[in-house]
Amino acid sequence: MPTTDKKRNRRQDRAPLDAKAQASRQREISISEFFTKNRHLLGFDSPAKALLTTIKEAVDNSLDACEEAGILPRVRVEIHLEQDPPVASGVNGNDNNSSNGNAKPGTVREERYKIVVEDNGPGIVVNQIPRIFGKLLYGSKFHTLRQSRGQQGIGISAAGMYGQLTTGRPVTIYSRTGPDQAAHRFEIQLDMKKNEPVILADEETIWEVDQGTRVEIVLTGSYKRGQHSVDTYLQQTAIANPHVQLTYCAPKGEPVVYESVAAELPVAAVEIQPHPHGVELGIMARMLKETKCRNVNSFLKEEFCRVGPKTAEAILTAAKLPPRKNPKRLQQDDIQRLLGAITETKIPAPPTDCLSPIGEELVLAGLQHGITADFYTSVTRPAAVYRGNPFQIEVGLAYGAQLPGDELARVMRFANRVPLLYQASACAIHKATLTANWRSYGLQQSRGALPSGPLVILVHMASVWVPFTSESKEAVAHYPEIIKEVRLGLQEAGRHLQRHIRRRVREREAEQKQSYIQKYIPHIGDALQEILILDDNERDEVIVTLTDTLERSRKF
Amino acid sequence: MPTTDKKRNRRQDRAPLDAKAQASRQREISISEFFTKNRHLLGFDSPAKALLTTIKEAVDNSLDACEEAGILPRVRVEIHLEQDPPVASGVNGNDNNSSNGNAKPGTVREERYKIVVEDNGPGIVVNQIPRIFGKLLYGSKFHTLRQSRGQQGIGISAAGMYGQLTTGRPVTIYSRTGPDQAAHRFEIQLDMKKNEPVILADEETIWEVDQGTRVEIVLTGSYKRGQHSVDTYLQQTAIANPHVQLTYCAPKGEPVVYESVAAELPVAAVEIQPHPHGVELGIMARMLKETKCRNVNSFLKEEFCRVGPKTAEAILTAAKLPPRKNPKRLQQDDIQRLLGAITETKIPAPPTDCLSPIGEELVLAGLQHGITADFYTSVTRPAAVYRGNPFQIEVGLAYGAQLPGDELARVMRFANRVPLLYQASACAIHKATLTANWRSYGLQQSRGALPSGPLVILVHMASVWVPFTSESKEAVAHYPEIIKEVRLGLQEAGRHLQRHIRRRVREREAEQKQSYIQKYIPHIGDALQEILILDDNERDEVIVTLTDTLERSRKF
Repeated sequence: MPTTDKKRNRRQDRAPLDAKAQASRQREISISEFFTKNRHLLGFDSPAKALLTTIKEAVDNSLDACEEAGILPRVRVEIHLEQDPPVASGVNGNDNNSSNGNAKPGTVREERYKIVVEDNGPGIVVNQIPRIFGKLLYGSKFHTLRQSRGQQGIGISAAGMYGQLTTGRPVTIYSRTGPDQAAHRFEIQLDMKKNEPVILADEETIWEVDQGTRVEIVLTGSYKRGQHSVDTYLQQTAIANPHVQLTYCAPKGEPVVYESVAAELPVAAVEIQPHPHGVELGIMARMLKETKCRNVNSFLKEEFCRVGPKTAEAILTAAKLPPRKNPKRLQQDDIQRLLGAITETKIPAPPTDCLSPIGEELVLAGLQHGITADFYTSVTRPAAVYRGNPFQIEVGLAYGAQLPGDELARVMRFANRVPLLYQASACAIHKATLTANWRSYGLQQSRGALPSGPLVILVHMASVWVPFTSESKEAVAHYPEIIKEVRLGLQEAGRHLQRHIRRRVREREAEQKQSYIQKYIPHIGDALQEILILDDNERDEVIVTLTDTLERSRKF
Repeated sequence: MPTTDKKRNRRQDRAPLDAKAQASRQREISISEFFTKNRHLLGFDSPAKALLTTIKEAVDNSLDACEEAGILPRVRVEIHLEQDPPVASGVNGNDNNSSNGNAKPGTVREERYKIVVEDNGPGIVVNQIPRIFGKLLYGSKFHTLRQSRGQQGIGISAAGMYGQLTTGRPVTIYSRTGPDQAAHRFEIQLDMKKNEPVILADEETIWEVDQGTRVEIVLTGSYKRGQHSVDTYLQQTAIANPHVQLTYCAPKGEPVVYESVAAELPVAAVEIQPHPHGVELGIMARMLKETKCRNVNSFLKEEFCRVGPKTAEAILTAAKLPPRKNPKRLQQDDIQRLLGAITETKIPAPPTDCLSPIGEELVLAGLQHGITADFYTSVTRPAAVYRGNPFQIEVGLAYGAQLPGDELARVMRFANRVPLLYQASACAIHKATLTANWRSYGLQQSRGALPSGPLVILVHMASVWVPFTSESKEAVAHYPEIIKEVRLGLQEAGRHLQRHIRRRVREREAEQKQSYIQKYIPHIGDALQEILILDDNERDEVIVTLTDTLERSRKF
């Protein structure tokens, strides 16, 4: 029952608002306020998902840092149940009680967990730590075209923000950049209004590791097993990252260790310049303004990939621009013509050494290590391009053995070696899998559905920039080039599977024939013996001859 | 063929990066840079979608402004094809040429369009115009709990940014706040680095309307017809907003006018305070810090809805907090206890006058006006709550007549009266529609698919805060409470439909029986005449009696 003055407010609210009144309500929205209210965009819409997302972001960062530093990653993940009382049931996406007219106190109660992620990476230099963990949209990967797990500069600070939001506790970071350096300990919070870090603790400390980073976040979440669980995420991470050693301590449970299958790091992905065909007017204008090059000719050659002297010349002639012209002097319609010329000019596809696919052998190894089946196959497609960004698709299939035969196939989606567990139906990989024709490979598939059978499908997209459908990085956007490549990969792998399935069928038929022969020949023998009045030797001869003949016929 | 020094760069790139080197790459990411690179999050991933999104955002703002000002909206939408040359094919999500290894110049070419949206609303006060159109995350609706179309403060400035990005042209705005006021004309650009407006023109001007706002955006896009087209969007907008008059001038084509069906505005939705059950620790802490109330008792009563003196007392006793305590003095564990107490306390569901559903009559009217069918029905569910936010589901069905009988049902999704055209498969509404059991209502439905038959399904979600899966506002997040409510609405409407379908079936059977009777009775009559040797009168009597009897039996 609202108080009378609230009632009065309400009545006022109903009054129409003229331009002035509407203007008075205009306000700036801080990026952290925005993501607090839209936390489902970051993957914090349910307590189970929040717990997973937090671990995901921390592990992604650890693996990126290790690989960039040329260190074989050893990552330790711990989930500790805290004793504090639970808080507002409102966070709980699964709290059905709030859905009926009369809101009762929540019965489904999420609990408090302390998440710890520790790596053997290069550590983080002290002055960077506050902003990396206490500021949204701050990172090293956004401005470079290079394959990496993180790209937005949102993830880990968002996880910290969520912890702070639900428990009021800061993020704790330990970092040591080498045995000769002192270890450092931070407690960081995020100022929601300013989107700036607040430093609660900043001190040297003793930490018994030579180097590495350790992140501790306390949050309200719920720990679940099954398809969308941390367990699944780590299993799949191990499959797609055979060079990584993962140690996992679940709440009340023995530590699980995923040993590394591969002895050395994947080939480091190099950074590339943007490809001319992927650049629009606005971006081009900004690049021209910011370039250090003194003339458009060198601008084209230096700032873009795949533009050599010949190509640059071709472009500038087509654009009717003098090679010596100062990039900063270009006018709107100059830029217009430049872009027109680029569109017209034949330019080779971007280099692909910016990509670091898992590789067919290791996809196979990963699958064999993680999944028990009769048959495995893997395909690594050649690199392709969408909106000027190179990308590469890999597909792996595991078939048969203990895998459930009557269910739909299980699809494991990966982007830059990171497992994608949510929003399958919104993902380009899922769409491509649905639209592939699995019947022709000897599997069952009802219209618009996944194939059914004892099958696990692995799809990996490696790219310098993965276009996710939301900041939570759970599904790949439906770019036609991407869907096409995934489908081609699935078809190639599908044909391998088809051969396997055909062989199995033939073998089964052969065995049957064989058994028939063994079953009936003797009787035929006896029959003939009676009809033709043969002695036992003659009968046995007949049987042998018959068997031989039939066996031979069976061969062909 | 990259130049040699680029090759050198590459080799350097392969060198491992220690903590220092990694630190040197850390940079801040401006919100506009972020959304430029992730433009698909805002609905600008393909040229066709970009055109639609731009119109959508402008129309949403016009309708919100008119309704808040108590004006019956009259909105005019124009799409003009511009003569300028097209630009970078890279924008084109459908440009398949860039997908094959060797990037040729794009053949699918999008064109330049000038989008104009003009309304009869209250206009915008001059000093607000630059930030509303030239700054992301600036708006009037984000900080209030009130049903409105816009909520993020991103849409229209993002559209302007996209236009600027693809054509370099600024946004032009005309605004007049009343007949006694001068009209004003602006040209605005957005500074991508700072996320601040750049004013290119700011002048008084002559404009032959008493009041209103006119927005002009030039962008590269492509104009398409069909399911995801502007045409569809406007048709559906007319259906869900029967009080709106829309005029639409497509490129080269006669203007189309959608006249309004309803004579007065929907009941204005009032603003509410947050409901206690939806608030987490972090939010509560901030509210306590920012409140003007001098003690926690009045804080609870003033800052939340549904908290009267009794409830406030109950909460504070349970939390062991003195009512006179100063909100700003509360410590972490005080807040902890407060939230615990709130969760324990029974508090009535939020008021629902913050919602403005379309209403069963008008849903019906809209459907009848927009779609030709034999049967119409509509359902408005009572309000429900997710994460403390009130929401309300409405369902409408149109069945039969010219609607295609052999295809899947068409689903029209609306959120706060705005049609949702993309990402159906990611939407809670879609999920609920799939999982409803349509067979039991006399429709065909194969497992995990939409029902098939001559059916159009309309679902509207009205809420003070619609949880979209991305900033482009195309799909509703999968909150269980929402899916549940949609399903209940569909079931109720489904039962109405079932009655209709049953009746049709019975009628058809009746007609058949009827025809049998007419067909055979006379012959039976003749037969009896022969057997019993009756004269013609007797025979006719028999026929009449028989017919009557059978007709009666048919009744039961």
